[in-house]
Amino acid sequence: MPENFAVRLMAACERKRSACVVGLDPRPELLPAPLTPPTGADRAAVADAVGRFCAGIIDAVAEQAVAVKPQIAFFEALGVRGLEAYAGAVRYAREKGLLVIGDAKRGDIGSTARAYADAHLRPGADFEVDALTVNPWLGTDSVEPFLEAAAATGKGLFVLVKTSNPSGADFQDLESGGQPVHEHVAARVTEWGERVRGAEPWSPVGAVVGATYPGTARRLRALMPRTVFLVPGYGAQGGTAEDIRVCFNREGQGAVVNASRSIIFAWREASDPDAWQDAVAEAAGKMRTEIEEIRRP
Amino acid sequence: MPENFAVRLMAACERKRSACVVGLDPRPELLPAPLTPPTGADRAAVADAVGRFCAGIIDAVAEQAVAVKPQIAFFEALGVRGLEAYAGAVRYAREKGLLVIGDAKRGDIGSTARAYADAHLRPGADFEVDALTVNPWLGTDSVEPFLEAAAATGKGLFVLVKTSNPSGADFQDLESGGQPVHEHVAARVTEWGERVRGAEPWSPVGAVVGATYPGTARRLRALMPRTVFLVPGYGAQGGTAEDIRVCFNREGQGAVVNASRSIIFAWREASDPDAWQDAVAEAAGKMRTEIEEIRRP
Repeated sequence: MPENFAVRLMAACERKRSACVVGLDPRPELLPAPLTPPTGADRAAVADAVGRFCAGIIDAVAEQAVAVKPQIAFFEALGVRGLEAYAGAVRYAREKGLLVIGDAKRGDIGSTARAYADAHLRPGADFEVDALTVNPWLGTDSVEPFLEAAAATGKGLFVLVKTSNPSGADFQDLESGGQPVHEHVAARVTEWGERVRGAEPWSPVGAVVGATYPGTARRLRALMPRTVFLVPGYGAQGGTAEDIRVCFNREGQGAVVNASRSIIFAWREASDPDAWQDAVAEAAGKMRTEIEEIRRP
Repeated sequence: MPENFAVRLMAACERKRSACVVGLDPRPELLPAPLTPPTGADRAAVADAVGRFCAGIIDAVAEQAVAVKPQIAFFEALGVRGLEAYAGAVRYAREKGLLVIGDAKRGDIGSTARAYADAHLRPGADFEVDALTVNPWLGTDSVEPFLEAAAATGKGLFVLVKTSNPSGADFQDLESGGQPVHEHVAARVTEWGERVRGAEPWSPVGAVVGATYPGTARRLRALMPRTVFLVPGYGAQGGTAEDIRVCFNREGQGAVVNASRSIIFAWREASDPDAWQDAVAEAAGKMRTEIEEIRRP
């Protein structure tokens, strides 16, 4: 069995002294001046500019981040050429030694989930990433094909346990049998992970846990001791350092923290448009330092 | 405001005397002999063969079905070229006068959901469909961008309320406040739909309701009187005619029924590989007759 994703991710955090993930959420209307396509540019030119922006971000953050998290929706919105840019960004990040978490939030019944696993976790696939975000709403048999693929290839999953958006509470926080529904999901995440963890300290089945609810995160940390958390919501989404502290265990391990807009659009505050990558690298460095102070106090 | 999708769908059911949706779940290893690419064919050739298969299915079922439901996972598994085939299949089906339900089960927080809505519901987008399946796990603010797009463009949604797979029960059937969680979702589906329904008899916010649980479907029909049901699970997934009856209202309206494998792979039982489309057309015709007998007894 190949080395498990979570173990590789935690090792990268130690080696790089960073628990930062940079989210690639490109928007064609928000590109640095040197990359802005001319008005009326066709789809291919726009997608190409988005691809060059992502490559520039990857270069700028490769030292500071352990992983990038491309959000496939922003590429999908640009159609076939956009997904070609996604494939290119994923490939480039892996070449640069970054782990790649595909933020696709896929989920479907058995044979269809297998097709999604094939699309995103199969070695050699156009969209091959190291780990994929997965939606648990359809239950165990919808997660199993991802689990099998992860075990076979050393890939990882991040299951949406508790999301950072306000309406995440609508169904995730409904109370059932004295526990919120998201804790039922957490119990399954542990169960799914134990099937494939073996003797490793971390399970390849991670969890997305929104940092905007520290009480919740603390409880989930206790419920899922072998689960790596992917914590969104740092920076633009409003999560603070204190909210994030509780996502790490006492050794300062077991979580990675994502920021998207506050890093990739940091150049908008800078004066020199040609130095846009410097602004991005600086924002990533600042975030890295802040998170290191939080997790290694 | 353009005419709403659900109203158009119900009108098509009356006009064609059919409530059948044919699911396009192509698998490269299951193509009729005349379309099978040579061993060792490259990705582009495989995706091209899949595209021609879908076009052949669309031609074969255009009279019998009201809509096709391409499952994007099977195209995504083939990478960028596969999604090009998806775009082609969607376009061809719409040209042929079929409504197209993109089975993508997308769902994400606000701005990302907007990107998905842009990808699948924006007129002129590569992946433009008439309606999209949507995963509700992230709650109201994750559905709103789809809702806005649907209202603006006359498109529709089908929210995953109760799915047909055995593990659908894991979280969807947890009891909360005396009701299963999926009924909480149903209440929101009604609420979301009422925001955009206006004076129309049907809301553009539909629901996926698995036909394998007739008691559940009967209750959901009562809870969501203005909601069109997309009922999977007919044929290969084991749903029977009786299970489906309860998804229609007393006038035999308010639902469409999907079959995928039992239609698109019907040629596997036939003797003449060159006549594969005849076998598909025959299977679709048989399903149509069966469903008409159920909904107009």
